[in-house]
Amino acid sequence: VEVSLEAIGQKLREKQNILILTHQNPDGDTLGSGTALYYALKQMGKQACVLCSDPFPLKFGYLFEDYQPEEFHPDLVVSVDVADKKLLGKVSGCYADQIEIAIDHHISNRINAPMLYVDPKAAATCEVIYELILTMGVKITKEMANCLYTGIITDTGCFKFSNTTPRTHKIAAELMELQCDFESINRKLFDTKSKGQIEVERAVLDSMEFYQENRVALVVVPQKLVQESGIDSADLDGIAAIPRQIEGVEVGITMKERPEGGYKVSVRTCRYADASAICGKLGGGGHVRAAGCAVNKPLEEAKKLILDAAAEAFE
Amino acid sequence: VEVSLEAIGQKLREKQNILILTHQNPDGDTLGSGTALYYALKQMGKQACVLCSDPFPLKFGYLFEDYQPEEFHPDLVVSVDVADKKLLGKVSGCYADQIEIAIDHHISNRINAPMLYVDPKAAATCEVIYELILTMGVKITKEMANCLYTGIITDTGCFKFSNTTPRTHKIAAELMELQCDFESINRKLFDTKSKGQIEVERAVLDSMEFYQENRVALVVVPQKLVQESGIDSADLDGIAAIPRQIEGVEVGITMKERPEGGYKVSVRTCRYADASAICGKLGGGGHVRAAGCAVNKPLEEAKKLILDAAAEAFE
Repeated sequence: VEVSLEAIGQKLREKQNILILTHQNPDGDTLGSGTALYYALKQMGKQACVLCSDPFPLKFGYLFEDYQPEEFHPDLVVSVDVADKKLLGKVSGCYADQIEIAIDHHISNRINAPMLYVDPKAAATCEVIYELILTMGVKITKEMANCLYTGIITDTGCFKFSNTTPRTHKIAAELMELQCDFESINRKLFDTKSKGQIEVERAVLDSMEFYQENRVALVVVPQKLVQESGIDSADLDGIAAIPRQIEGVEVGITMKERPEGGYKVSVRTCRYADASAICGKLGGGGHVRAAGCAVNKPLEEAKKLILDAAAEAFE
Repeated sequence: VEVSLEAIGQKLREKQNILILTHQNPDGDTLGSGTALYYALKQMGKQACVLCSDPFPLKFGYLFEDYQPEEFHPDLVVSVDVADKKLLGKVSGCYADQIEIAIDHHISNRINAPMLYVDPKAAATCEVIYELILTMGVKITKEMANCLYTGIITDTGCFKFSNTTPRTHKIAAELMELQCDFESINRKLFDTKSKGQIEVERAVLDSMEFYQENRVALVVVPQKLVQESGIDSADLDGIAAIPRQIEGVEVGITMKERPEGGYKVSVRTCRYADASAICGKLGGGGHVRAAGCAVNKPLEEAKKLILDAAAEAFE
């Protein structure tokens, strides 16, 4: 049921032990949303806990300077940036039916919670959390600002993607007034690469394939390559941006082989193709310019499925 | 002589044919400043002309949709984003002593003009031009917004560098309200690479050298490589960012061989080394995190000079 941020703020005020669920394969927006809300609730004198089915990626370590309790008995469960209960993953999944508040910005949100707030115009769920914290009358601290800034730059590619709005920049201005560590966060998330990452990127560039008269570029990231480079799987996030960067490419496809087999597919589009529609055909989803899906097939078969889905964008 | 923006606005209002000088090897900030001012002056019923000693790089073509007269007899000469008369280059250089208004954000500005306005807190000269246009009471159009946005993202690395301020984001929010084409501009300037560029980047990565216990990374871009790849020299701008991206590197040095011999050196620093001081030792200058100089020596000698200058940052 769609409710106002005021109503959500009121509900949070009434409860004492609040569990915050993020989505699996966590990115800066789900983690930034979760931790910003966590710090705000602590400031209100609550107990809070951020739960994710996957380990927090190392590069986001700066978001979690605070202690998190090992045992936690929630009297309220909130999900942030989770578009579907399936995306909670194994660990958080057991709380799926207890979600009372779902806060998100994915238009495809399918969570049926008693209190739902989805703002598809928000570039990041962190924009919504920013408003929520202000609504609750909590003063935003520098650490909250770092979390919120992280989510915003993750989901907008540092203010570059089409989802960026004047509001995004206005919030960024406020977070900068609060002395958020924007320079080091940007360097950490966008401008630092290990030698392993560079090796992987080069191998990936070497293997790039073109289809649809060079309008589709596809790269494959084999599990073996990732293992040999010794890099964290979160360090592969930047790779999805590479195929779309080539001049003339409209649809960039990145297929990452999963440790358990099959492929995690990221689709990025430039101007007119709908990434969310392409991935939707294979059971995935996301945004118009960036979406994803999982294909549990051997390489050639998986490739054909996703290329066929992409081909429809040019019909 | 330092004057107010109001005084500069008043002077511009009094004149009719205004020549705007940009610096040589033009970047998005000098061109964005020049063209935004150009459009504003046209809107005020003036004749205006933007002059640059080098050809306008192709990728900035969208800034110049309007006609520019071939012959121009100025009654007022203005320089934008030009820190030193030497940087005007050959063509514009003949107007060096006629500059009446100099508008800039480089703290190192050495232009001795009757009217000087330097705001070192401005991330880009385009921030100053934005204020100037408003001061003159001119309504900012979408095309001016595109020019101003271009300068801001060029000089802040898309809001990532330490020079970015809350004001930068507030201006960006205003430019977005004016429907500036932020997505396509960002894609053009940051996220589009030709196959030639990718080839050059890979060759450059292959040749990277490390010094000072991996805190200094140096790459050389040979003229031969650039010629063979067939890319525009402005398309090499992104290369300067690569060495600093490697984990643990504090000083990233890029040496581009010039067609006429010698090297154009770009220095980027991460946290504590002063790029401007390093380049200053070799007669160059710039900002704390990004600076440049020219070294007119054969490769090994040039390399030693710049590495020695960089080494002092670690003493």
